[in-house]
Amino acid sequence: MIIDCHGHYTTAPKALGDYRDRQKADLKKNPQHQAEKGTVSISDDELRESVEGAQLKLQRERGTDVTIFSPRASWMGHHLGNASTSKAWTEHCNDLIYRLTTLYPKNFVGVAQLPQSPGAPLDSSVRELERCVLDLGFVGCNLNPDTSGGFFNGPSLADRYWYPLYEKMCELRVPGMIHVSEACNTPYFQTTGSYYLAADTVAFMQMMTSDLFKDFPELKLIIPHGGGAVPYHWGRFRGLADMLKRPPLKESVLNNVYFDTCVYHQPGIDLLLQVIPVDNILFASEMVGAVRGIDPETGHYFDDTKRYIDGNEKLTAAERAKIFEGNARRVFPRFPASL
Amino acid sequence: MIIDCHGHYTTAPKALGDYRDRQKADLKKNPQHQAEKGTVSISDDELRESVEGAQLKLQRERGTDVTIFSPRASWMGHHLGNASTSKAWTEHCNDLIYRLTTLYPKNFVGVAQLPQSPGAPLDSSVRELERCVLDLGFVGCNLNPDTSGGFFNGPSLADRYWYPLYEKMCELRVPGMIHVSEACNTPYFQTTGSYYLAADTVAFMQMMTSDLFKDFPELKLIIPHGGGAVPYHWGRFRGLADMLKRPPLKESVLNNVYFDTCVYHQPGIDLLLQVIPVDNILFASEMVGAVRGIDPETGHYFDDTKRYIDGNEKLTAAERAKIFEGNARRVFPRFPASL
Repeated sequence: MIIDCHGHYTTAPKALGDYRDRQKADLKKNPQHQAEKGTVSISDDELRESVEGAQLKLQRERGTDVTIFSPRASWMGHHLGNASTSKAWTEHCNDLIYRLTTLYPKNFVGVAQLPQSPGAPLDSSVRELERCVLDLGFVGCNLNPDTSGGFFNGPSLADRYWYPLYEKMCELRVPGMIHVSEACNTPYFQTTGSYYLAADTVAFMQMMTSDLFKDFPELKLIIPHGGGAVPYHWGRFRGLADMLKRPPLKESVLNNVYFDTCVYHQPGIDLLLQVIPVDNILFASEMVGAVRGIDPETGHYFDDTKRYIDGNEKLTAAERAKIFEGNARRVFPRFPASL
Repeated sequence: MIIDCHGHYTTAPKALGDYRDRQKADLKKNPQHQAEKGTVSISDDELRESVEGAQLKLQRERGTDVTIFSPRASWMGHHLGNASTSKAWTEHCNDLIYRLTTLYPKNFVGVAQLPQSPGAPLDSSVRELERCVLDLGFVGCNLNPDTSGGFFNGPSLADRYWYPLYEKMCELRVPGMIHVSEACNTPYFQTTGSYYLAADTVAFMQMMTSDLFKDFPELKLIIPHGGGAVPYHWGRFRGLADMLKRPPLKESVLNNVYFDTCVYHQPGIDLLLQVIPVDNILFASEMVGAVRGIDPETGHYFDDTKRYIDGNEKLTAAERAKIFEGNARRVFPRFPASL
């Protein structure tokens, strides 16, 4: 079985975007507007249509089996509005994921967006995580480490601000993928190019310079996009651990931190596989996502990352099986045993 | 000859730090304090002592010849105080580099810090660049793309804000290294780990999504630290150029952008050499810098990057000579022909 641990619902029907536009219009009139959940009317047929020609088609074509699926990351937009905005929006986004997992229980397993909001406490996120995991069968969550949308002015991931959420994640046995959303300070940032990769790298440094995993030895965090700049600069980070009098990375982070394989060329994947222990790597493509075109150098989709894993000549069959399936089952213990 | 194009004066005598502390004390009393240049008293013997056991010793030990040398990057601190603060501080920092280049003309070639200040126009930086290049014989400058110290809230490198500086750089035929300074929003950022690499990646994305180099075809910009996350994600950036309807990277940036070799392990350097054209790579170590320890896996200094270039098995002698010397002479046309 091949489990793609990083997919977002980037192809939602127009009604979802319309709902968000109405939220923005309300906020334009009154930034303190208290959102009600209201309704998003999308039929099952519309849901089917939105994924049949996209994620499901690509699963079949590429030979992957199941995608661990969450709401569109760039649309989380936690910087918009207030806590009530994020709560209503997040519940709808998660509800759609739930419906997709019931329509296609063999193809999609749910991961939750959280209703984070800058400066707001995490109670609402803890409650939504409980709802998604206990009521909707989700197996993980996406955690936005910079709800400002690009100013990096909130609490570090090592800050006790996050502890109520980490406690709930450990209690429920669900991992978190560290994933920012759309950058609002454009053109300084381009969301999927510079902002995502910057945030990934920043997250790792926060983890390795803190005692976060001493406090939460069972917490599992996934850094997407191949870990940002981290594997390429693995020597720098090993050396910084030494300079900053931190434990070696194997002790401080590698029991808890995982990197996905969303690196869109063979040399990058080869580097990832060379420097990061195989037990810390999870197969992922983030299709249909940031990079949807075909690489003229290979004739294949940039984000068809299975080809790069298959194309690496040094992996053994057992290692490949860990990356494609075994590690995901370990990191997501609630992944359905029936699959 | 081996030219190390990225070295900072990280070992300055205490009097320089004392001067900066006095500036900070003045600003604490009055954030609008208008700084006078004043004096920093450091003898030639103190200057010699500060580098003999450090940069010069390492040059000899590692077999490099000359370092393109600039003030300490993490101390630029453009976010501190106001334009007058940066002007006085920068002039002193550059004056010390000049004195070192006269004491050791075979070992050091100067690169200027610029007196940038958030929101201030670049006139002062243009003037200081002229002074450093025309009066002091410097061959380049360091350009801070985020003078906020970590909030990424200023103008993108493609913004016309920077154009007066780019015009002067082209006129004087000096390249710029894109280099942020100390992060002030700790512990969110750790300066040399996450902030530097994030800023490097962001800078590249700003360049590839703009027409900057159409407006300045002669401008040369160096992205340090191996280009941040860029080479590792080269496929992502190639694919994003396609998604965003930008020209291929070879056309949009590779005539103007260079990556240094400050990547502190063999697999990272091997990736850099595999994906980036050899003409766009400049040898550098950034010693004595962010990572000063010895790698227990190799028994050698993490930042002894010459070993990794030597250790790459695919480079030809001609390619190695370009990386060590030829490219630097091309990118820094004012590099002394006598050397």
